[in-house]
Amino acid sequence: MNEAVKERYDADFWQSRLENLVEHYRPFSVSGRNAEYIPALGKIDSSQLGICVIGSDQTMIKSGDWDVPFTLQSISKVISFTAACLTRGISYVLDRVDVEPTGDAFNSIIRLEMHKPGKPFNPMINAGALTIASILPGETAREKTDSLYSTIEKMIGKRPVINEEVFQSEWQTAHRNRALAHYLKETGFLEADVEQTLEVYLKQCAMEGSTEDIALIGMILSNDGYHPFRGEQVIPKDVAKLTKALMLTCGMYNASGKFAAFVGIPAKSGVSGGIMCAVPASLKREQPFQTGCGIGIYGPAIDECGNSVTGGMLLKHMAQEWDLSIF
Amino acid sequence: MNEAVKERYDADFWQSRLENLVEHYRPFSVSGRNAEYIPALGKIDSSQLGICVIGSDQTMIKSGDWDVPFTLQSISKVISFTAACLTRGISYVLDRVDVEPTGDAFNSIIRLEMHKPGKPFNPMINAGALTIASILPGETAREKTDSLYSTIEKMIGKRPVINEEVFQSEWQTAHRNRALAHYLKETGFLEADVEQTLEVYLKQCAMEGSTEDIALIGMILSNDGYHPFRGEQVIPKDVAKLTKALMLTCGMYNASGKFAAFVGIPAKSGVSGGIMCAVPASLKREQPFQTGCGIGIYGPAIDECGNSVTGGMLLKHMAQEWDLSIF
Amino acid sequence: MNEAVKERYDADFWQSRLENLVEHYRPFSVSGRNAEYIPALGKIDSSQLGICVIGSDQTMIKSGDWDVPFTLQSISKVISFTAACLTRGISYVLDRVDVEPTGDAFNSIIRLEMHKPGKPFNPMINAGALTIASILPGETAREKTDSLYSTIEKMIGKRPVINEEVFQSEWQTAHRNRALAHYLKETGFLEADVEQTLEVYLKQCAMEGSTEDIALIGMILSNDGYHPFRGEQVIPKDVAKLTKALMLTCGMYNASGKFAAFVGIPAKSGVSGGIMCAVPASLKREQPFQTGCGIGIYGPAIDECGNSVTGGMLLKHMAQEWDLSIF
Amino acid sequence: MNEAVKERYDADFWQSRLENLVEHYRPFSVSGRNAEYIPALGKIDSSQLGICVIGSDQTMIKSGDWDVPFTLQSISKVISFTAACLTRGISYVLDRVDVEPTGDAFNSIIRLEMHKPGKPFNPMINAGALTIASILPGETAREKTDSLYSTIEKMIGKRPVINEEVFQSEWQTAHRNRALAHYLKETGFLEADVEQTLEVYLKQCAMEGSTEDIALIGMILSNDGYHPFRGEQVIPKDVAKLTKALMLTCGMYNASGKFAAFVGIPAKSGVSGGIMCAVPASLKREQPFQTGCGIGIYGPAIDECGNSVTGGMLLKHMAQEWDLSIF
Repeated sequence: MNEAVKERYDADFWQSRLENLVEHYRPFSVSGRNAEYIPALGKIDSSQLGICVIGSDQTMIKSGDWDVPFTLQSISKVISFTAACLTRGISYVLDRVDVEPTGDAFNSIIRLEMHKPGKPFNPMINAGALTIASILPGETAREKTDSLYSTIEKMIGKRPVINEEVFQSEWQTAHRNRALAHYLKETGFLEADVEQTLEVYLKQCAMEGSTEDIALIGMILSNDGYHPFRGEQVIPKDVAKLTKALMLTCGMYNASGKFAAFVGIPAKSGVSGGIMCAVPASLKREQPFQTGCGIGIYGPAIDECGNSVTGGMLLKHMAQEWDLSIF
Repeated sequence: MNEAVKERYDADFWQSRLENLVEHYRPFSVSGRNAEYIPALGKIDSSQLGICVIGSDQTMIKSGDWDVPFTLQSISKVISFTAACLTRGISYVLDRVDVEPTGDAFNSIIRLEMHKPGKPFNPMINAGALTIASILPGETAREKTDSLYSTIEKMIGKRPVINEEVFQSEWQTAHRNRALAHYLKETGFLEADVEQTLEVYLKQCAMEGSTEDIALIGMILSNDGYHPFRGEQVIPKDVAKLTKALMLTCGMYNASGKFAAFVGIPAKSGVSGGIMCAVPASLKREQPFQTGCGIGIYGPAIDECGNSVTGGMLLKHMAQEWDLSIF
Repeated sequence: MNEAVKERYDADFWQSRLENLVEHYRPFSVSGRNAEYIPALGKIDSSQLGICVIGSDQTMIKSGDWDVPFTLQSISKVISFTAACLTRGISYVLDRVDVEPTGDAFNSIIRLEMHKPGKPFNPMINAGALTIASILPGETAREKTDSLYSTIEKMIGKRPVINEEVFQSEWQTAHRNRALAHYLKETGFLEADVEQTLEVYLKQCAMEGSTEDIALIGMILSNDGYHPFRGEQVIPKDVAKLTKALMLTCGMYNASGKFAAFVGIPAKSGVSGGIMCAVPASLKREQPFQTGCGIGIYGPAIDECGNSVTGGMLLKHMAQEWDLSIF
Repeated sequence: MNEAVKERYDADFWQSRLENLVEHYRPFSVSGRNAEYIPALGKIDSSQLGICVIGSDQTMIKSGDWDVPFTLQSISKVISFTAACLTRGISYVLDRVDVEPTGDAFNSIIRLEMHKPGKPFNPMINAGALTIASILPGETAREKTDSLYSTIEKMIGKRPVINEEVFQSEWQTAHRNRALAHYLKETGFLEADVEQTLEVYLKQCAMEGSTEDIALIGMILSNDGYHPFRGEQVIPKDVAKLTKALMLTCGMYNASGKFAAFVGIPAKSGVSGGIMCAVPASLKREQPFQTGCGIGIYGPAIDECGNSVTGGMLLKHMAQEWDLSIF
């Protein structure tokens, strides 16, 4: 992608500001801690903080540990939802997963039992993401992940690498996800085998990316699915809008409401410390991001909700200073 | 307010389009029905449909039953939240009410019991709105409602009329709200007497307004609290942004997620059939609404979620045709 | 009643054993603490422990603080349920309150909302007891409490005294019970005004009795409603059996299952530290309690479930040593 | 066992009464229907009704389809709980499973999530029964089931036959049970592999027995674990009492409270239509059942709670006519 993006050096001002912000917020990583249920994540240097911002005008600025690869974890839920909509159509997908936020934990099973017939409330919680994984096209886990990788390739020009250590680690301890999947199997909201679905879901969680990769995906979403560097509509406009709405209402775990209130950007986080943002165009904003941008952030120390501590602080600051809020 | 708005007749094209849309969607009121738990609402002509759109450039177009007064019901929750933030400050308010969406019914009590210490999840559900009513400044119900009316006066230039019939009817059947209020009293999230709080809350629900009134409030919110006709910042920018975020994530009852996904406008509905929208400025949109607008809608036939059936259809159509989505 | 009971002094052996047990368990009151939400209860000497056992053969043994009056609190739920069945008939009562145990807290509101139409699960939790209070015969709170006092008079030969201090204290802090009552009013499971019902319910909770009083009621229940001293069936047999079943399955708050498992006696406790037991006749048991007995216990230090700490220990010991279990 | 029981023909009166009752209640099977989620159960003649009563005095009466073998289903939960207590000790078992009734469905997962740390509420619901299956001694499913079969052999003198068709059918559709088991695995309340535990659990559900077999087990429980025909204490007294308490409070699914109230006998039902009862000795009762008895019933048409329709009616009638209630 580096080739595709002309790094416009008239962006020097913004670049320099970004570097200041990254160094300012990096030390706050001490107030969070790495996700520990995955041993491979626990070992990572918590003080890492990186960011990449890609404007639809082909501007790109980046700072800190922007090029460290990390596993996408829940950020992949946005991609698999998009892939499902692309391949199955929105209405097929929404017959199987709703798009309503909940105040429940991401791995909660309660609502499936309380609300008949147990349709997952949205694709950003595990129950919904498992259903989405199960309806990706293909008869095997391989075919399903392939259809996911193709969607990613359309956006970032390459297929993702799977972190096998993380995948194996999650595979062996996925009791809660297996519980959810079996529950969904019973209520009819899983269209593939439980183990097959889990393989797809955990592989997507273990896909690696850098802040540049997710910034690019975020930028495409911000641009209603149109890839300006390629000059191609890679995601239909309605799917892109739907995806951004989901990110805003459900993307930041149980802090989604507060994130919408105080940052105001469609975003999706993962427990590995990544955050992918899609900032739509805005009249109010100055150049170079007036026509919208994608932001990728990586800071592995997370808070009790599962969101990157330093990433969240950095975003809140930028949203106010750079007028990024959609509200 | 009529005096304040110059009805720009170069808006003829939009005016005419609006009229076509209103007449097109009016007959669909048959697929909903008036709220029935308030007898006064049950008697109203279900086929009414009115709309008023006010641009921050002082454009105003309106159509159908735009001037029929109706009780604001849950739309008032937006106003009381704003008033509480204005008078108490955001942090005081957010210590007592969270801003997270839930998938629960608006009058649900479950989450208060399940999640210690029982802080209401957001001010758009009844539990949160009762807490908000209790913290409005003043020692008496009268003083508290006065502080609410003052906020409204700042925005629409007049104090609201209370529909006494509706107030009395709700007062006598407010068992569920009394249950919520007593529960909040026990857990310490109600700062006034239960009966006093209920009087404030039910009076605010019984405030009357027209689509023009709520369109104006919506426009001010869309404009980050700046009242362009008065040239005055009537609501601080941060309060306005927070309020719009809440409307988007929690404003349309249990269809908030779907409304965000398919309409994409910060909006708040009430069971009387009103919907208040705040459409921020957008680069993508054509004149005259590029710099943002407020929309007020009234259509008393509601769906099972509590939202105006024809109002929702009309908005969805407009959002797509006029590019009103914030995403 | 003292006149009615011939204290059989051939019961010397049992008397002496009882005294040893009371003195043995009294010091364990330090592992509990008095209920504190009612100031009047907080002030009481926690080390009190008293017991009275009345056999249907007119044997009576008692020890310790057996004659200290205490407020019946939840023990009164057994009496009001019985009174409702006596005056309204079992089927009328069971149309309004179920008899199923739950694992929820006694003051929980969740299940009312989760299980439509919100019929209280049993009369031993507050929701059910409020419904029962509302259906006692009479148009006023006075008439309803009168019908309750009459039932008590039939059993113990006197009308209860109300502890006004406790009543006033509970009346002013009954937010949770008011929440429950308003909820029940909305769902149609309250047949009287909320405030009237609360007055009846809190008066019944504030009725004073001694261990002798509740032992006598327990003995009558154990004897299927037949009052052997009066030679009169004061409660119909089917009501007595139903009441004992409820005591066993739901009588000891959230420890009812463990109490059934390790003590095995129909019993009802109150937060003031009382426990009323109805021990049916048994072939396995020795004289003098083979034909059944009632047991009244008072020990104000309660555990986290709300049951008397020393009372529970004493009962468990007696149940094993004296073969009191119904299983 | 037939050899062990002297069928006392002075029991002619009771035998004849029993036959009348069976024929009276048999036609009521039309108000229920066979469990359908297991195809093999769906095919069975719904009008079957059989009963066997075995007194601890070695009396035995039986009538109707008493000798039809059926799969024990949930009745096996009583046996596995007993086996776990026998082999692991009561306190080991109760550290892993509580003994509190709930008002939830037998296959509910909600309470595990709502109540930290998710200890199953009792061994009669699926969550608890799965935990019990996992702690049976042995490293393999085979060894675990063997320890269960040994317990049964001690009581009825033979090892049970597994209905392979039923086992296979349940094995393939056990999504809900797999969900529960994985959930328990995560929270640490499953001590064996998920699949191993499920094999044990579903095998125990598929064990076949006749009304005579379960009447014998019920009789031994009623007799506090003493096997009168063998002259041997096959289950310790405390385990037997604990088991009966569990049967009374939790044995009849969500109708346990009503069954306790109107029948008053420790009993456990299964969806195949079986009911196993343990009727303790009673002073009040006439011969031949004064010293206690076990009752086995089989009637495959079940009600919406999962209990045999005709079996429940028959028991209620017998409980009243023969004074079988423990209350």
